[in-house]
Amino acid sequence: MSLHRRHILGAGAGLGATLLTGTAPLLGSLGAAQAAAPLAGTQAPSTFRFKIGAIEVTALHEGVAARPLDANFVRNAELKDVQAVLAENFLPTDTLNISFTTLLVNTGSKLVLIDTGFNDNGGPTNGRTVAQLKSLGIEPGQIDVVLLSHFHGDHLQGARAKDGKLVYPNAEIMAPENEWGFWMDDARAAAAPEAMKGAFAGVHRVLKPNANDVKRFKWGQEVVTGITAVDASGHTPGHTAFAISNGGKTLMYVADITNNPVLFARNPEWRVMFDMDPEKSVQTRKRILDMAATDKIQISFYHANFPSTGFIAKEGAGYRLVPAPWSTVL
Amino acid sequence: MSLHRRHILGAGAGLGATLLTGTAPLLGSLGAAQAAAPLAGTQAPSTFRFKIGAIEVTALHEGVAARPLDANFVRNAELKDVQAVLAENFLPTDTLNISFTTLLVNTGSKLVLIDTGFNDNGGPTNGRTVAQLKSLGIEPGQIDVVLLSHFHGDHLQGARAKDGKLVYPNAEIMAPENEWGFWMDDARAAAAPEAMKGAFAGVHRVLKPNANDVKRFKWGQEVVTGITAVDASGHTPGHTAFAISNGGKTLMYVADITNNPVLFARNPEWRVMFDMDPEKSVQTRKRILDMAATDKIQISFYHANFPSTGFIAKEGAGYRLVPAPWSTVL
Repeated sequence: MSLHRRHILGAGAGLGATLLTGTAPLLGSLGAAQAAAPLAGTQAPSTFRFKIGAIEVTALHEGVAARPLDANFVRNAELKDVQAVLAENFLPTDTLNISFTTLLVNTGSKLVLIDTGFNDNGGPTNGRTVAQLKSLGIEPGQIDVVLLSHFHGDHLQGARAKDGKLVYPNAEIMAPENEWGFWMDDARAAAAPEAMKGAFAGVHRVLKPNANDVKRFKWGQEVVTGITAVDASGHTPGHTAFAISNGGKTLMYVADITNNPVLFARNPEWRVMFDMDPEKSVQTRKRILDMAATDKIQISFYHANFPSTGFIAKEGAGYRLVPAPWSTVL
Repeated sequence: MSLHRRHILGAGAGLGATLLTGTAPLLGSLGAAQAAAPLAGTQAPSTFRFKIGAIEVTALHEGVAARPLDANFVRNAELKDVQAVLAENFLPTDTLNISFTTLLVNTGSKLVLIDTGFNDNGGPTNGRTVAQLKSLGIEPGQIDVVLLSHFHGDHLQGARAKDGKLVYPNAEIMAPENEWGFWMDDARAAAAPEAMKGAFAGVHRVLKPNANDVKRFKWGQEVVTGITAVDASGHTPGHTAFAISNGGKTLMYVADITNNPVLFARNPEWRVMFDMDPEKSVQTRKRILDMAATDKIQISFYHANFPSTGFIAKEGAGYRLVPAPWSTVL
């Protein structure tokens, strides 16, 4: 990553032959002073707003989680092939920095938060959704609807803080019927293999205390005006995408049809360890990515590089996310 | 861009056959209510912080400017070929939304602003640099150095407001010697063709009132501790890149070695109308992009999609910007 002397000097006069020869700085005497602003040491508030017709959508950077990359992560690819794709994308090859992006949707009449992140149930590098909302002047109590794509912890746990309190106290929680049926079944939870018991317990922690208040919806239903639930099952039994439509435009929030699209849009046959029905996940991934590419529909992922939204280009046997243009005006 | 019924329905049960059949919303009665937060109507503060060793760099979204795309924009390509590349990147083919990203560099001892944008001398969709700084808690008076890559208006005009006041009153303005020599020459300004007179006048407006205070630097010089000026001439006679280096890492701020890299990194031979020495511009563009690709050096453009920074992948006969990962931790 360093700018090697050989390259600078090798480039000849064009790059300035004296670049690294130690010319005294013009402001050399100022090196000991303090800058008027201290180093911040942390990321700035990270939100990105765009419009779908009259609906305002804001991507919120929930954060990242690092996990060591091992041969398990992609079930049906060689570790070296996974590492090659990461390297091509200038990403570390020993660690995956999985990114999380929640979505605030202001329909004009409702403030809807799609997926919640972790709140204080995750690690030190995530749980930023409430802070991002506050950076926009929005308090958690103003959220009208918490809309869940599925019940994996990184999407759901942020609905209830570690102390048991609801993070969005005035919000109606809305969840896919098929997801509810799978995870809230006590007999299935009791019979679950040891490795799955934590996942069931996590879901129950968040949803059981207010189970009667959770509104369940079916695929095909317009769950909030302008937001329609779409079957994206495979990743989990009730995994749901949301079509956010207004004024002839549509954003598809595709949740986890891929983990990082750098890997799984590029290689849609690859099976991430989190896909509960891997074969169906591949079908869903291909179907939705192909539709997005063909129809030039903007999509938002949960696990792409922030702001995690853009358009899908066909590339080789797979697809590539082309980030949406960032603008000052909506 | 719309999610056509035929595609949804054509996809079969997977996408939900009832998607667009008009199921009543679960919250249908709430359509008339106002969301607790009004529609914002504008972009959220847009800054992106990253580290180069111990140096903190923050990309600031100065804004965009729309201009109609005509056959003049790329001097040596067919309009239809330019439009094809834009379409491949899901961008409008009749309008160019040229993006501007200024850089705040905190070396620990100095707050340096690289290029200034327009301040109030541009249009309604740009001039956001001061607002971005304020969103980070930084006042213009805290900037120690304004470092200019070259004297085109979108880089320079923001140093002095329309009312004649310096925008960064406590900053030392630093400028490339070769740029100064070209633009500040009164004889050359007087002899300039009509189409260039405005550019000269713009430079003089900003720099003449405090001409004696402007610090001029040469290529190869370390202008501020950790920031070295690099010859990137061609776009203008003194066009300068900056190598920001600390702890064995380097960011190259490459200013206008390309206009939008979607067009000109992909097609480095293409000559944008703003390149004053087109042939030398092509050489500079290729040399720096090739170095960045070979050495995997992070670069920041002025005219890429915000945050306008990342790594350079070779692609066909050209290059592609791979955006840097967005993180919560630095």
